Amino acid sequence: MKNQKRLRDYGIVIGKMKTGKRNSISDVDGVKVGHFTLKDNNIQTGVTAILPHGGNIFKEKVMAVSHIINGFGKTMGTIQIDELGTIETPIILTNTLGIGTAADALIEYMLEQNEDIGNTTGTVNPVVCECNDQYLNDIRGKHIKKLHIFEAIKNADVDFEEGAVGAGRGMSCMGLKGGIGTSSRILELGEEVFTIGALVMSNFGAKENLIIDGVKIGKLIEEIDNNTYPGEDKGSIIIILATDIPLTVRQLKRIAKRAVVGLSRTGSYIGNGSGDVVIGFSTVNRINHYEDRATIPIKMFNEDKMDTAFRAAAEAVEEAILNSMVCAETTIGKDGNRRDSLGEFMDKGASHSS
Amino acid sequence: MKNQKRLRDYGIVIGKMKTGKRNSISDVDGVKVGHFTLKDNNIQTGVTAILPHGGNIFKEKVMAVSHIINGFGKTMGTIQIDELGTIETPIILTNTLGIGTAADALIEYMLEQNEDIGNTTGTVNPVVCECNDQYLNDIRGKHIKKLHIFEAIKNADVDFEEGAVGAGRGMSCMGLKGGIGTSSRILELGEEVFTIGALVMSNFGAKENLIIDGVKIGKLIEEIDNNTYPGEDKGSIIIILATDIPLTVRQLKRIAKRAVVGLSRTGSYIGNGSGDVVIGFSTVNRINHYEDRATIPIKMFNEDKMDTAFRAAAEAVEEAILNSMVCAETTIGKDGNRRDSLGEFMDKGASHSS
Amino acid sequence: MKNQKRLRDYGIVIGKMKTGKRNSISDVDGVKVGHFTLKDNNIQTGVTAILPHGGNIFKEKVMAVSHIINGFGKTMGTIQIDELGTIETPIILTNTLGIGTAADALIEYMLEQNEDIGNTTGTVNPVVCECNDQYLNDIRGKHIKKLHIFEAIKNADVDFEEGAVGAGRGMSCMGLKGGIGTSSRILELGEEVFTIGALVMSNFGAKENLIIDGVKIGKLIEEIDNNTYPGEDKGSIIIILATDIPLTVRQLKRIAKRAVVGLSRTGSYIGNGSGDVVIGFSTVNRINHYEDRATIPIKMFNEDKMDTAFRAAAEAVEEAILNSMVCAETTIGKDGNRRDSLGEFMDKGASHSS
Amino acid sequence: MKNQKRLRDYGIVIGKMKTGKRNSISDVDGVKVGHFTLKDNNIQTGVTAILPHGGNIFKEKVMAVSHIINGFGKTMGTIQIDELGTIETPIILTNTLGIGTAADALIEYMLEQNEDIGNTTGTVNPVVCECNDQYLNDIRGKHIKKLHIFEAIKNADVDFEEGAVGAGRGMSCMGLKGGIGTSSRILELGEEVFTIGALVMSNFGAKENLIIDGVKIGKLIEEIDNNTYPGEDKGSIIIILATDIPLTVRQLKRIAKRAVVGLSRTGSYIGNGSGDVVIGFSTVNRINHYEDRATIPIKMFNEDKMDTAFRAAAEAVEEAILNSMVCAETTIGKDGNRRDSLGEFMDKGASHSS
Repeated sequence: MKNQKRLRDYGIVIGKMKTGKRNSISDVDGVKVGHFTLKDNNIQTGVTAILPHGGNIFKEKVMAVSHIINGFGKTMGTIQIDELGTIETPIILTNTLGIGTAADALIEYMLEQNEDIGNTTGTVNPVVCECNDQYLNDIRGKHIKKLHIFEAIKNADVDFEEGAVGAGRGMSCMGLKGGIGTSSRILELGEEVFTIGALVMSNFGAKENLIIDGVKIGKLIEEIDNNTYPGEDKGSIIIILATDIPLTVRQLKRIAKRAVVGLSRTGSYIGNGSGDVVIGFSTVNRINHYEDRATIPIKMFNEDKMDTAFRAAAEAVEEAILNSMVCAETTIGKDGNRRDSLGEFMDKGASHSS
Repeated sequence: MKNQKRLRDYGIVIGKMKTGKRNSISDVDGVKVGHFTLKDNNIQTGVTAILPHGGNIFKEKVMAVSHIINGFGKTMGTIQIDELGTIETPIILTNTLGIGTAADALIEYMLEQNEDIGNTTGTVNPVVCECNDQYLNDIRGKHIKKLHIFEAIKNADVDFEEGAVGAGRGMSCMGLKGGIGTSSRILELGEEVFTIGALVMSNFGAKENLIIDGVKIGKLIEEIDNNTYPGEDKGSIIIILATDIPLTVRQLKRIAKRAVVGLSRTGSYIGNGSGDVVIGFSTVNRINHYEDRATIPIKMFNEDKMDTAFRAAAEAVEEAILNSMVCAETTIGKDGNRRDSLGEFMDKGASHSS
Repeated sequence: MKNQKRLRDYGIVIGKMKTGKRNSISDVDGVKVGHFTLKDNNIQTGVTAILPHGGNIFKEKVMAVSHIINGFGKTMGTIQIDELGTIETPIILTNTLGIGTAADALIEYMLEQNEDIGNTTGTVNPVVCECNDQYLNDIRGKHIKKLHIFEAIKNADVDFEEGAVGAGRGMSCMGLKGGIGTSSRILELGEEVFTIGALVMSNFGAKENLIIDGVKIGKLIEEIDNNTYPGEDKGSIIIILATDIPLTVRQLKRIAKRAVVGLSRTGSYIGNGSGDVVIGFSTVNRINHYEDRATIPIKMFNEDKMDTAFRAAAEAVEEAILNSMVCAETTIGKDGNRRDSLGEFMDKGASHSS
Repeated sequence: MKNQKRLRDYGIVIGKMKTGKRNSISDVDGVKVGHFTLKDNNIQTGVTAILPHGGNIFKEKVMAVSHIINGFGKTMGTIQIDELGTIETPIILTNTLGIGTAADALIEYMLEQNEDIGNTTGTVNPVVCECNDQYLNDIRGKHIKKLHIFEAIKNADVDFEEGAVGAGRGMSCMGLKGGIGTSSRILELGEEVFTIGALVMSNFGAKENLIIDGVKIGKLIEEIDNNTYPGEDKGSIIIILATDIPLTVRQLKRIAKRAVVGLSRTGSYIGNGSGDVVIGFSTVNRINHYEDRATIPIKMFNEDKMDTAFRAAAEAVEEAILNSMVCAETTIGKDGNRRDSLGEFMDKGASHSS
């Protein structure tokens, strides 16, 4: 992805399953990701857009679920996702106080794409997720503007940056720099091959708890880097899971629930103040907005094969979180607040040991 | 159904949709119902079994959901129904303190039918629902025996009695005699025709609240019949919904949630002490216990056609409740406690007005 | 309330419990409601704000729940309500495509009231509910502006209008004019007296289904008034429940679930396209944003007294819905689309029969 | 606990918090645990009873929650726990096909203790949890009898055995011997001191995945011990959390949700076939079965202190799982099937390295 140094470049491999070609959520055919980043002294924030497919998402919805690991968060759109089992817009990630603007921009974008909305058909359900970047970003300044959302959507591509970019620009994770990360896993089931991809916006946890592939490295880093947020730990993680496995909504929900396994293994205790939210979607079994047939043929997944999908989701989430940190550069933001890069620590460690 | 006088025989029609041939849950192809009834002075109780289809239910599971309207109840098996979206045993209804025995009997029945259970394959999830019949029945006597469950299953038929029979024998509803009732509705969607059937075990509510098709008849009856349970109102209703619409589990759950509409219209306020539980299943989209394919073709229902299904479920539940009362004979049980028949009141009213 | 003719003015009484002084959600001490209304040809929309108490809601949160009857809706803020059991902002009601603007305005309002948000403490969870008013209102025009939210909050009072005002301006209910309605009930439990109040924004259903106090009046009205929405039935109802009963969140959730009883009795089948959402809060047991004590004394309600609260909630919701319709004037909006007033029908009926 | 060698005796410490005096669920004042064990060739099974307090649990209920991590399980009683937020019986653990018998025995036990049940008051909600021990135990033989449940309850004590005892007798975990394990953590909050205790019945996972305190030891053990279950992996884990923190049900549920953190860190991917169920209860804020007051003073926990409780729950669960394995002896059961002891592996490793 965009020539950044990622976790595997340090020789660390999470789990035992194969990754997709890009080790990215965009290994799921059709999925694209775009960023818009604001970085200027006190302003360290941005927008990330995830497009489930390249067509008109309102007209051709994807099956989707939300799963709330911890609900201290403001993610929008989950009520309708849970009821109808579909997503009908791009998924927008931004900072917590930008959700109103992001929702409004997304509504405008959808109205422009679809003249029927609010006219000859009903309305639209904007999906907006958020984390709080107030440590590095002047979040009260409300610097997210509608244009930024349009730009992030426009920038969507199969190749995209990780780390301190887009909505991840101002995020902190485990007392270090957090941000956007991604990873994927391949499921080979007989002759059928499927992909599960994860993208995270990481913004949770305390430094002392960081675990990398079982190694409790957080305490070690804490001794070197005692730069800790003086205020409350108001974190969050947004986890987007994409797959091309033909799943029913119930099945997709089961997979989304396994994200917590990967999250736990990076050292999270699912903190009180952390809005830990999973949005999952499958790019197959699409639902037409206009549908005449009384019944519609779809495919479901063999429940007995689920364990492989569960492992894939857990592995991809764990690696996506670590990628979000490894790829994120040290960032100095609001009031000179600073978050150090995990990647830079690991580079030093690597040079020491060599 | 078995030549009993039902609600429609009094000229009262709930809703506007057509009923199935029998106006019964057994209008859903393959569904059968069997009773075993105990009636002897203090012992007024029994068992009702609902068979989703005539084959081996463990080997060929039906998609299913549970929906808890109010959880002051002891229904068993819902955790697995909710996770896997299937039922793999007959559904057993009995009195509250009989659930252990019923579960044990159902396990035995399933072991006998399936030599692989607990041996070369996993275990089995018995589904047992209950209401408390302690006003008419010596429930502490624990008169339900395993044999009664086997008999109820054996007695299953498309034609079955309603009212004070089977598990409904000792039940009270709206201060009158409750019990088992059923009804069905037909959905004509273009060239496709579907059926939704409801079966209830009614055991809830207070006399003054009874509503029949909008008419608040409860207060009227209360003036004539002041026989009211002196103790607490510990009611419940079990609602079984069956359909041949091809539904995903998410869709089936939505339909199950509309049962409360029918329930509310009979006068229920969903009382604190009332375990109001819905179990729904679709007889199509069956799931094989042994399945080799990685993906399985199924059909889902067009979400835009849901309103018809919602209305059908609400109408069938409302009428099933009223049928359970109309068909139930006046019953004198434990300690001479007595519940009067709604049907007998209506007969008197009919003769008065004629 | 504001000298409007309400349901009881037609001699129709829902249920058997006493109402509060105003028969309004504002009978719950401290609760206020404010509107801002836009009415100008194609623009028939607005904002309604509900204030749980007169103090700083962020600093002194009220215990709260959400309950989703049907999730075809975009209500914001429910994830955090469900996790933490509190509301920390006024509740804003508006049209579906105005939620982004409303959320953004509410965030601004909260930032202004609280300098610590996003600075020395975390962020804030804006609660915004919506219905789709596209039949009467040019919803695509996005006429809701931030100023309108501020005005609605400013206008909050214990006395407020019902019907075609505020967010209810463009709403349709049962094929007639919907809008804002309210009602309340008093619970006398020994020496303690409590209040439950409901406020609804009604925008659901089909004319033929309208039931008033058990009477299926919808069909009758349909014969006279065949003005029916030609497009899809994309409705919704927002139900706000307020109480001064000291409840835990679990208990409050149970009460919120009884709103559906009142809803069902007005004729709703909980339609597929209807986002039926309940937000409930208790004004006692407040939670301080800054709290030092490890444990906090609160009061809970005796579960055995719940039935009275359930009935109160069901009655208040049923009457609030009917008040929303009775008080709403006939409205002509977008493209000359028209919704007739139930109150005007009833006036005619009254004059006929007299 | 009963002089068994536990995880800490190998110098392995999970987390950073202090344990209670016994490092056991019985460190929560009043909690007792009793076993009844059957071990005779093909019969390797039993019963474990957890008593929330020493009084009459029906008359003085404890606040409780269930949390379903994965619902491929048959645990009984959760519907009412979720609705009313209380447990009113001892919690019984046994094998999957023994739940009917266990429920029936528990009902009998409660009837005997309480003459009012089913007579002058309502019925009772038996709480029974299960795992499938069919690899080591002739589960089809249904060897659990009612007497065994009574004996397990009678045997309850603050000191109890861990490992291959009681309901844990036939359980397998991570391809090794599983069973019963326990652990506890102390929370010091200012001058107030609280305890959280966990008890697990472990029966999940695959050997290759076992992680002990971050070390992926499973693969190592797999090389030595290639004794793997030839059939399907039909596992489960039951997790009982007890605490003396004054919590509302909502708060207790949040803590129960953190059990998955501990579970994940032992190597679980929350397998498809694994019924992973948490039951949590608080021994304070008890609810009287007979209560006259309209409102009841209780205490709730300061939400801002939750993180300590979350960590305590996660740590206690992780250590309880490992204790269940370390304490379990190598067991040969049905058809000569064998599960090796993790403790014995660790003893060998310890002697090698010394």
